[in-house]
Amino acid sequence: MVADLLYEGKAKRVYQAQGKPNQVVLAYKNDATAFNGEKKAVFSGKGRLNNDISAHIFGVLNEQGIQTHFIEKLSETEQLVRQTKIIPLEVVVRNVAAGSITKRLGIEAETTFDPPMIELFYKDDDLGDPLINDEHALFLSDVTESELTEIKAEALAINRHLSKLFAAVNIKIVDFKLEFGRLADRSIVLSDEISPDTCRLWDMKTYENLDKDVFRQGTGDLLEVYQKLLERLEARS
Amino acid sequence: MVADLLYEGKAKRVYQAQGKPNQVVLAYKNDATAFNGEKKAVFSGKGRLNNDISAHIFGVLNEQGIQTHFIEKLSETEQLVRQTKIIPLEVVVRNVAAGSITKRLGIEAETTFDPPMIELFYKDDDLGDPLINDEHALFLSDVTESELTEIKAEALAINRHLSKLFAAVNIKIVDFKLEFGRLADRSIVLSDEISPDTCRLWDMKTYENLDKDVFRQGTGDLLEVYQKLLERLEARS
Repeated sequence: MVADLLYEGKAKRVYQAQGKPNQVVLAYKNDATAFNGEKKAVFSGKGRLNNDISAHIFGVLNEQGIQTHFIEKLSETEQLVRQTKIIPLEVVVRNVAAGSITKRLGIEAETTFDPPMIELFYKDDDLGDPLINDEHALFLSDVTESELTEIKAEALAINRHLSKLFAAVNIKIVDFKLEFGRLADRSIVLSDEISPDTCRLWDMKTYENLDKDVFRQGTGDLLEVYQKLLERLEARS
Repeated sequence: MVADLLYEGKAKRVYQAQGKPNQVVLAYKNDATAFNGEKKAVFSGKGRLNNDISAHIFGVLNEQGIQTHFIEKLSETEQLVRQTKIIPLEVVVRNVAAGSITKRLGIEAETTFDPPMIELFYKDDDLGDPLINDEHALFLSDVTESELTEIKAEALAINRHLSKLFAAVNIKIVDFKLEFGRLADRSIVLSDEISPDTCRLWDMKTYENLDKDVFRQGTGDLLEVYQKLLERLEARS
């Protein structure tokens, strides 16, 4: 099924889907990176886990009426998605203060954000994906003011769905990163992945990290943590 | 006239005005600092020049109906202003790309911003005055969403007045930093100073820097540049 490689990122490859001009195949890799690529490792089986977890979550979001690129899982490490042109914004939603924001703004860790905090980062590896404001986003990325408002509203709607999905298995979604892309008709849909690589997830009882922080901080076995997370999500559905 | 020292900043001291409970005296110092205080020097006469220049500009803004803290010049280095509680935001307006934004976001120097770009920085020396977005501003500083909208609209109105004021003496106002404060009744007015310490000003014909960049970059005599700027402003009025 897989043909021409269109793009290779840190965690996924993107191939043209044969015979389907507006569809592409995402192939999840086993690579883990952190701190803008400074820390790297390969975990055999990570690609399969993130493919499963992201497919599960996007499937739920599709059912809830969120417009996403996700079509179906194709194989252990591959999924079929609608082709989008990625908007160069990382849209971060934070329910609780953790990670970079605590140092950057001196906000105490575990502070609850109500309403949730939205941050935009400009997707540019050479610049280190800098934090930007709305005015920057309008200038740097090809989005209009009303599209940016729509993207933020969609991010908050996705947060409500994800918070519910994870709360049902006793997990708090602390923060997460979304990417949006444009279909051929220029409409904007949720793209990329939602996985423990892109979310901060805490067990509601033990406060254990169930995400890439175990790799960032060297505090746990990434494969074991991702496998357990998948099992908890699947046990519920 | 001057009594208790209320606050000492890098460029000014603030004293309680005797017998006037809601007024304070700003006394301009001769210190120049750059790069978050890493580069420092004292220029005898700088305080007098910035007091004159800022008094001149605030006088014009008052005439134009902008609500500011400025009342009157008291002496060579002192001015009387309404007492405000400073909102911990630096509001930067950029008409043309110069300085930090070019490196931070990879925007080519001298790119025109139309509409002008507004940036907010969180006033916190320990954190290095980080760039923040609107959501951060609402969380970190005691302003409401409608007050933030009002502050930005006021910053753009001030930009129109300053652009006109400087254009009349063949100077382009490239960017500048504003601070706002609350009066006792919680209404918000323009505070702090507007001077070559807080603006980037270019001669429209020669493109010479007429601001603190001559000190930052070591390319000119700060006192001479500030003196000439004052003369150009005063010659026009």
